[in-house]
Amino acid sequence: MSRVAYVNGRYLRHAEAQVHIEDRGYQFSDGVYEVILIKNGHMIDEEQHLKRLQKSLSSLEIVLPMKQTAMRHIMKEVIKRNKFQNGIIYIQITRGVAAREHSFPKYSNPTLVMTARRIAAKNYNEIESGVKVITIDDIRWKRCDIKSISLLPNVLGKQTARNQGAYEAWMVDAAGYVTEGTSTNAWIVSPDGRLITAELGRNILSGITRNRFIKIIHELNYKLEERQFSVEEAKNAREAFFTSSTSFLTPVTEIDGAVIGNGRAGSLSIELLKAYDNYMNQAY
Amino acid sequence: MSRVAYVNGRYLRHAEAQVHIEDRGYQFSDGVYEVILIKNGHMIDEEQHLKRLQKSLSSLEIVLPMKQTAMRHIMKEVIKRNKFQNGIIYIQITRGVAAREHSFPKYSNPTLVMTARRIAAKNYNEIESGVKVITIDDIRWKRCDIKSISLLPNVLGKQTARNQGAYEAWMVDAAGYVTEGTSTNAWIVSPDGRLITAELGRNILSGITRNRFIKIIHELNYKLEERQFSVEEAKNAREAFFTSSTSFLTPVTEIDGAVIGNGRAGSLSIELLKAYDNYMNQAY
Repeated sequence: MSRVAYVNGRYLRHAEAQVHIEDRGYQFSDGVYEVILIKNGHMIDEEQHLKRLQKSLSSLEIVLPMKQTAMRHIMKEVIKRNKFQNGIIYIQITRGVAAREHSFPKYSNPTLVMTARRIAAKNYNEIESGVKVITIDDIRWKRCDIKSISLLPNVLGKQTARNQGAYEAWMVDAAGYVTEGTSTNAWIVSPDGRLITAELGRNILSGITRNRFIKIIHELNYKLEERQFSVEEAKNAREAFFTSSTSFLTPVTEIDGAVIGNGRAGSLSIELLKAYDNYMNQAY
Repeated sequence: MSRVAYVNGRYLRHAEAQVHIEDRGYQFSDGVYEVILIKNGHMIDEEQHLKRLQKSLSSLEIVLPMKQTAMRHIMKEVIKRNKFQNGIIYIQITRGVAAREHSFPKYSNPTLVMTARRIAAKNYNEIESGVKVITIDDIRWKRCDIKSISLLPNVLGKQTARNQGAYEAWMVDAAGYVTEGTSTNAWIVSPDGRLITAELGRNILSGITRNRFIKIIHELNYKLEERQFSVEEAKNAREAFFTSSTSFLTPVTEIDGAVIGNGRAGSLSIELLKAYDNYMNQAY
């Protein structure tokens, strides 16, 4: 079965979906994106993703090429045409095609691209063994709150992790604090059971899944602290994990070689993941 | 006459030149570029541009999809097919098309794109009146020595300049020093006639035109200092200007509203520009 992509008004075979070489997304990374999970044919936290997309667009002064209701219709159509029940939809909007010149073009029609792909269900046995994380310097720009396609530092960071046999790299600012992962939000559990994740600011992305876990943590009456934490504090944490729309919650069992907890997924991490699974199953 | 672009082995009508939506240049700004000036049908400082391109590619571990001699042949062919004598050639190389995933794909063929366009000759009367510059915070990532397409902060900076009626924005680091312009290198002339531009490092791009002017300055026996300078020092400079492959040398007559010198292009700036013009005319 062939995948279908959407590009500016047309549904195309994925393999044939193209954009012009002078699309500003291609020459300047002048655009934004969202990745939304599809669970049993339904989008998880669609509202929150679209709200963040709008915020990212506003930050770059890109005007959505259509009303949001029209875009929602296309999103549903893309999911339908790709004929899967579990996967993701990827939405990218750039400032559009214009003669190459750094400043915004006087006129340009933003480019809207959507792709979708199936993803396999999580395997809890695999999850329990956890993953390794390394830490790297956070060399990104100072507006990481915008979900832009200017992702080269994230790419290099993720590759550094892979080269060292790790699944993710946590980025550390000049003061020694963990900001976030290259494509995930970072969390730790303190020795006395408080959940800790960096507070929102221009140095991290306001993760939709991060924010959903915060709600779940409140509902379960666990203690939460949105604050900076150092690499040292992370290494001495009782549990550690990261969250994202595609990975949900992934337990971390090693940070820069230091074993976290007993080297297996922490019990609180698994409890939260199960609560998130429940949330997803009741979300529609 | 229609423009011709090159994309991965094919010469195409510019308007029809496209890349796949999952080109990593489009989704991750995972690529690099060069802009080379064409003067009377010849490329200016071709060697230096290609050397820098190779350095940028190496930094990202992208392997040039062909030998450099083959690429030079394509560059010449692109210029020839576009049938102009004075303009620029734009070269972009990305890691290629792959299923979206931050880390490097196991296999991908880098994408090579070239475009060309005519540009008008400089008008010295216009140059003499100079341009306005504003200063903004340097919010870019920490590897600005790589000429990557991850240019969103540069785009936003240039637009901020345009919004304030200025031609360029000079970026200022946390310590208050000017790093460079959003697409140009920044220079000042001290009250006693020394030429000053920031030293090379990971915070600025090694401008080919910057480096060419350094050679010219040495040949003309002017004093040069490659060192940091503050906004305050710039405002009190005798002259100020910026350099780039497409703008050569552009005199700056106002920085954040402060008039530089007598509000017209400085005499040393014009002398250097004329020397650069001579260099270009003798370069082939």
